[in-house]
Amino acid sequence: MRRLTAILGVLGLVLSAPASSSADPLPGWRDSPVRQRILAFVATVTTPGSPGYVTPMDRIAVFDDDGTLWPEKPRAQGMFALQRLRSLAGDHPEWQSQMPFKAALELGSKYLEEASDEAVFQLIAAAYAGRTQDAFRQDVREYFATARHPRFERPYTRLVYSPMRELINYLKANGFRVFISTSGSVDLVRVLAEDLYGIPADDVLGSSVVSTLREEDGRLVLRRLGSVHALNDGPRKPLAIDLHVGRRPILALGNINSGGDIDMLRYSQQPGVPSLQVLISHDDFEREYAYDEPDGASVKAANANGWLLVSMRYDWLQIFSAE
Amino acid sequence: MRRLTAILGVLGLVLSAPASSSADPLPGWRDSPVRQRILAFVATVTTPGSPGYVTPMDRIAVFDDDGTLWPEKPRAQGMFALQRLRSLAGDHPEWQSQMPFKAALELGSKYLEEASDEAVFQLIAAAYAGRTQDAFRQDVREYFATARHPRFERPYTRLVYSPMRELINYLKANGFRVFISTSGSVDLVRVLAEDLYGIPADDVLGSSVVSTLREEDGRLVLRRLGSVHALNDGPRKPLAIDLHVGRRPILALGNINSGGDIDMLRYSQQPGVPSLQVLISHDDFEREYAYDEPDGASVKAANANGWLLVSMRYDWLQIFSAE
Repeated sequence: MRRLTAILGVLGLVLSAPASSSADPLPGWRDSPVRQRILAFVATVTTPGSPGYVTPMDRIAVFDDDGTLWPEKPRAQGMFALQRLRSLAGDHPEWQSQMPFKAALELGSKYLEEASDEAVFQLIAAAYAGRTQDAFRQDVREYFATARHPRFERPYTRLVYSPMRELINYLKANGFRVFISTSGSVDLVRVLAEDLYGIPADDVLGSSVVSTLREEDGRLVLRRLGSVHALNDGPRKPLAIDLHVGRRPILALGNINSGGDIDMLRYSQQPGVPSLQVLISHDDFEREYAYDEPDGASVKAANANGWLLVSMRYDWLQIFSAE
Repeated sequence: MRRLTAILGVLGLVLSAPASSSADPLPGWRDSPVRQRILAFVATVTTPGSPGYVTPMDRIAVFDDDGTLWPEKPRAQGMFALQRLRSLAGDHPEWQSQMPFKAALELGSKYLEEASDEAVFQLIAAAYAGRTQDAFRQDVREYFATARHPRFERPYTRLVYSPMRELINYLKANGFRVFISTSGSVDLVRVLAEDLYGIPADDVLGSSVVSTLREEDGRLVLRRLGSVHALNDGPRKPLAIDLHVGRRPILALGNINSGGDIDMLRYSQQPGVPSLQVLISHDDFEREYAYDEPDGASVKAANANGWLLVSMRYDWLQIFSAE
């Protein structure tokens, strides 16, 4: 009898663990108004019969990637491009004078702390022109298996902001579909997203290069060309979400840096539908970085529209996981 | 004790129902070599330790839509466009002379039995130019709530091929991610896919129009323009799968009509990885339609590459569900 009760207990745990667990779902978040607003929003949209109830099908959350889920100084994507640019530079004398190649090759990670989204993506597009998509994915796996962040001296793959990873898990446990919308390479983030964030490859949206379908050795192969197909930033983000997801998100999260997430957050806000918009503020010089936007556009939009500003320094008890 | 055993039994069923249920997963399929090959393929890729085992993450299946999951004579998408073309024709005298508008307006469903993928999508693009994406989705819902097929005299939404619906459920129960890749409007199929096929909106790929992001009444709104962004057919299908899914499918299903699925099926076949390619043959004049491809390209590709040909007449015990 005791044994059966134990089995039932285990089964009960398996069946109900995510949604009704009494353990704190967001242990890395200080018990602040920010955390309370996130919990209240999720409670509102998941409580059947409440006026703000949203069916699981419409519980769409979209996260920016660089600077929102992991550090963007320097851009890990840019570092990945740089090692290949360096190895190919002998065959490309034009890179010695052309931007952004010249700056990347001369200044390395210092440049990749400040480079624009567009410049970083240009580096990837050019560095991997001619690779098959299958080989590119393998390149990503191999690079990130060993590459380490220059300041934190641990693998990039262990620099996910742990409060954000908690938030993703908490949302999924509450019936949300969680997508990433990055201005970086969609092909790169997809390879890592499952391990880093628990998000499957097809739930990642991002910038893409033009590819071509070729017959090689009797098989169809996709090869990357050097040109940019779409840069997923600013107004492109809502357009890409509509094209890929086909529903308007009710939760959108970005960070304060280039203003590239403003349109995505605005798009997730519509009259009569409960929604939440979140911007991460990089104000933690000691544990991560401290930087702002020159024109302050993101903060202005946040104040005008009632968005939630998250202070990394104050609201996050922990930035990276201990292990 | 008996009660506990019963509870355990129910829990066991809940936990293991899809994969190990002893009920026939494909009751609408005749017990033919076709059905046996499908069952054998699924068994191979889902048996841990077997040389053909494929992890759930890589169990990607892609289905064409029109003619593969429901009839394409006439095109339901074309009928949806036609009713709006007719209501707007007074403001568009040019449609009286321009193709494909002229043919659609003059010949109606007869034209839509033979029109090309490209022509049908042009009709939708033009008919709904200027609509917001939200309004377009509502238009789709309203049209398909009442519209009936001219020959079968039942709603289009009750003309899903029931053996294919069984196959989708069977694949999902075996850990497959199931996508649709249609040459029709992605925005249209998405509205219906959840109800028709149990496939969520974001797992549908298809043709798209150019949209624009506009500020209207202080909100960001997406409006459809009249031009075609991408026609998802032929070589576009593998490219779109790579862009949207980021993995190569191991199972691809299309039908014999225009040859538009050949590239998608070829792309799903690669050395060293178990895969299955399926083409539906419309050879059932009595229960559905009988038609072929003028150049026979799909059948030639099937024979050259070992693809599975499904005879609707012989292999399917039932075409549509009884209710």
